[in-house]
Amino acid sequence: MHDIAANRFAVRTAGMEASEIRALFAVASRPEVVSLAGGMPNLAALPLAALSQQVAQLVAEDGLTALQYASAHGLPPLREQICAVMALEGVTARPEEVVVTVGSQMGIDLLTRLLCDPGDVVMAEGPSYVGALGSFAAYQAQVVHVPMDGHGLVPEGLRAALRRARAAGQRVKMLYTIPNFHNPAGVTLAVERRTEILEICRAHGVLVVEDNPYGLLGFDGATYPALRSTDPDNVVYLGSFSKTFASGLRVGWVLAPDEVREKLVLAMESATLCPPTLNQMIVSRYLAAHDWQGQIAVFREIYRERRDAMLDALERYLPPECTWTVPDGGFYVWVTVPEGVDTRAMLPRAVAAGVAYASGSGFYTDKSGGRQMRLSYCYPTPERIREGVRRLAGVVEAERGPGLSTGSPAPVERTPAASGGELRYVRS
Amino acid sequence: MHDIAANRFAVRTAGMEASEIRALFAVASRPEVVSLAGGMPNLAALPLAALSQQVAQLVAEDGLTALQYASAHGLPPLREQICAVMALEGVTARPEEVVVTVGSQMGIDLLTRLLCDPGDVVMAEGPSYVGALGSFAAYQAQVVHVPMDGHGLVPEGLRAALRRARAAGQRVKMLYTIPNFHNPAGVTLAVERRTEILEICRAHGVLVVEDNPYGLLGFDGATYPALRSTDPDNVVYLGSFSKTFASGLRVGWVLAPDEVREKLVLAMESATLCPPTLNQMIVSRYLAAHDWQGQIAVFREIYRERRDAMLDALERYLPPECTWTVPDGGFYVWVTVPEGVDTRAMLPRAVAAGVAYASGSGFYTDKSGGRQMRLSYCYPTPERIREGVRRLAGVVEAERGPGLSTGSPAPVERTPAASGGELRYVRS
Repeated sequence: MHDIAANRFAVRTAGMEASEIRALFAVASRPEVVSLAGGMPNLAALPLAALSQQVAQLVAEDGLTALQYASAHGLPPLREQICAVMALEGVTARPEEVVVTVGSQMGIDLLTRLLCDPGDVVMAEGPSYVGALGSFAAYQAQVVHVPMDGHGLVPEGLRAALRRARAAGQRVKMLYTIPNFHNPAGVTLAVERRTEILEICRAHGVLVVEDNPYGLLGFDGATYPALRSTDPDNVVYLGSFSKTFASGLRVGWVLAPDEVREKLVLAMESATLCPPTLNQMIVSRYLAAHDWQGQIAVFREIYRERRDAMLDALERYLPPECTWTVPDGGFYVWVTVPEGVDTRAMLPRAVAAGVAYASGSGFYTDKSGGRQMRLSYCYPTPERIREGVRRLAGVVEAERGPGLSTGSPAPVERTPAASGGELRYVRS
Repeated sequence: MHDIAANRFAVRTAGMEASEIRALFAVASRPEVVSLAGGMPNLAALPLAALSQQVAQLVAEDGLTALQYASAHGLPPLREQICAVMALEGVTARPEEVVVTVGSQMGIDLLTRLLCDPGDVVMAEGPSYVGALGSFAAYQAQVVHVPMDGHGLVPEGLRAALRRARAAGQRVKMLYTIPNFHNPAGVTLAVERRTEILEICRAHGVLVVEDNPYGLLGFDGATYPALRSTDPDNVVYLGSFSKTFASGLRVGWVLAPDEVREKLVLAMESATLCPPTLNQMIVSRYLAAHDWQGQIAVFREIYRERRDAMLDALERYLPPECTWTVPDGGFYVWVTVPEGVDTRAMLPRAVAAGVAYASGSGFYTDKSGGRQMRLSYCYPTPERIREGVRRLAGVVEAERGPGLSTGSPAPVERTPAASGGELRYVRS
C-alpha cells in the first residue's frame, strides 16, 4: 500500500474514527451477552405474513416500477402519506416539501453537507446522538454541547452557548436537537420550553434541525407538538420509519424550508441518485393497507413493558449512588454511576460479566460522559433486561471498590429526569 | 425565509446545481417524447413472478433480519457473491475487502469525501459520467478532463495532464475512469492501454477509481480484464447491480485497498448507518437461486438489438457530417453534430419535435461538449429508437441551416470509435 499514505486522504478523513455503534454490533451479536447497548427496534410484532403477501403482490404487479430508478425527491404518494404521519404532531406540510432519504441518518449527513463549512459550529444537546456527531465530524463541523436537564435542553444554557460562540467569532449554523424521548438521554423537551428555544434560534439566525425518530413512541399514546409546527420557516424536521415500521428498509425523510429542500434534492442525487424505489413502495403500501397506528400502539406497549422492567431492575439492583432518567417513550435510559467509576474503562469487564451498554463518552465530542452510560431496553425481553441489569449492578459494585460498597450512603435523587406527569401533553 | 439566506449555506453548496439527469427525468416521462436521454435499464425481461415468490419467502421466513439494521460493511454472504461476480473480469478479492453501498453512486460520493479536499484535482475522461461530476463538485474537487479516442482514455493525454497539474502545484487525488462501454462516450479502453495507464498513475502516486457498471454487458459476452485485476493496491473498483439486475434496489459495492476500505465503512455509517438489509438479501438470494449469468445474457441481447437499431437509424437518417461512436456494450452512443450546431440550445426544439437526448456539455465541467450529445438505446423499443433518431435527424438538419443541407458533403469518418474487432477480448 505504497500510494495511499495518510496524506492521500482529505483533511476531514483524519477525524473519522470507528464509532461506538459499530463496535457495539459485534458485542451485541454474542448470544451469552445481554446487550443493553444497541438501538435495534423490536420487530417481532410486525405482521410478517401480511407483509410478505403485500411485497409479493408489489413485485409481481408493479415490479418494473419498484425495481427501476425513480426521482431523487422521493415517490409522490409516499411523500403525501408522510405529511399525514407528521400531522399527528401538529405539522402542516405539502408533499412537495418532503424529501425521502435513505434513513434519517442520510438527512443529518446531507444537511450538514449543505450547511457546514469546516469550523462552523453545530449546537447539540449534551449528550447527543452518536450518528449525528459522526456526520458533524465528517464535515469538520465543531460541536458545542448545550446542557439538558430532566425537561430537555435548557434554554438559558443555549443562550449562554450562543453568546460565547458569538464572542469567539464562531459561525453557528444549526441547533441539532432530539426533542422527544431523547437518544441517549431518555428525556423530553418540555412543551413550555419549545417556543422559547425557537425564539432564541430565530433571534440568532440559527437553523433548528429537529430529529424526531421516536415521537410516536410515547408510552401513553400522546404526542408533543413538533418544533416544526410552530416555526415552519426556521425548522428542518427529520423523520424516520425505522422505529415505527422497519429499520432495515432505510426509509426516512426531511421536511425543510424551500431553499434548503431544493439543495437537499441535489445532494440526494450526488449521494445515491435516488432512494430505493422498492422500499418506498413497500412503506407506502404498508401505510395504505395496514392499521399502522394500531401497529405503533403495539410497539409502544412492547417498549413500555420493557421500560418498566428496566426501571424496576435499576431500582432493585443498582447501588444507591446511581441515578437515571425516566423515559416516557423511546428506547433509552441514561444512567449516572458513582464518582470514581469510568464507564468506558468498565465496559470490557461488563462484557466479561455478560452485559453490554453504550458508555457515555461516545455521546459527546468533548469526552464528557465518563460517569454515564446509555441503557437500551428496546430489544431484549423483560427477563433478559432484568438479568442484564443484575449483572451490570454487580460490575458497578465491584468497580467502585469495597471502600464505598458498605455503610449507608447519603440520600440521592434517583430519578433526576421529569416524569410524564410534569409535562403537558398534546393528545393525538 | 428570513434566516436561510445564501450565506447560511456551506461554500460547497454554491456549486450544487440541478443536474441534467434530473431535468431529463421530467422530459422522459412524457409519453409522446421518444427519450434517448435517460440511462434507465430495460427491466422487462426480469423474471418478476419468480422474484415475487422469492421476496415473499424472504419476508415471511427471514423478515426479522431483512427488516432490521445490519452492519455498515454489508452482509457477508452478499459480499462473498460479489467476489464471484468480479471474478468474471479477472478480479481476485476477499469478501472482507468489499463494502456494499446504496448504488455505486454512493461509492463515488464517499470516495470523494475520503480523498478530496477543496481544490484537489480529479482526473476524469472527457466526457465523463455526470453523476460523478456532481459528487466531485459537491466536495469542491477540481476536474481535469483527459482526452479519449475510440480506444478510450489516451495515455499520452493523461501523462500530459499530470505534468501540467504538477507544474501548477496541484494535488491530483485520483483518476476516475469508466474503462468499459463508457458513459457517455460508448467506447472501451483498449486492453493494451490498461497496463500503461496503471503504470502512469502509480508513478504519479494517483489512485485509480475504476467505475464498472457495464462491464458484463459486452455484446459478444466477453469481458475485459478489470484494472483492479492488474494493480490491486492502487485501484478502487466500483460495481453495481443496477444494470445487471435491478436499479431500484440501489445495491452497489466498492472494492478498495485496506486503508481506503476501513475509512469507507466509517463514511457509510455517517452517510446512512447501513445499506438496506432487505435489498441486500434480495440480491443475494437472486444470485443464489437464479441463473443470473443467463439473465445477463438476455439483457445483453436486448441491448445489442437496440444498439443495432440505433446504429442503423443513425446511418440512415443523420446528416452525413455527423459522426458517432460504435459501442460494443453498455447503453450509449456519443454523437458529434455538424459545426455550428449547439446541442444544448437545440434540445428544446428536439423535445418539441418529440425526441430527447442528453446534450454533451453536461458531461464536462469545462463547458466542452457543445457539439456532442449522448443517445441512450437501453430503454425504448427498437421501433421507438428508429423513430426517435428520425425525428432527431430532422431537428439537426433544420438546425444546421439550409445552406449546408444541399450539395454533396466531403467524405467523413462516420465511426471514429473502434469497433469490437480491434480490441483483444478476454473470454469469461
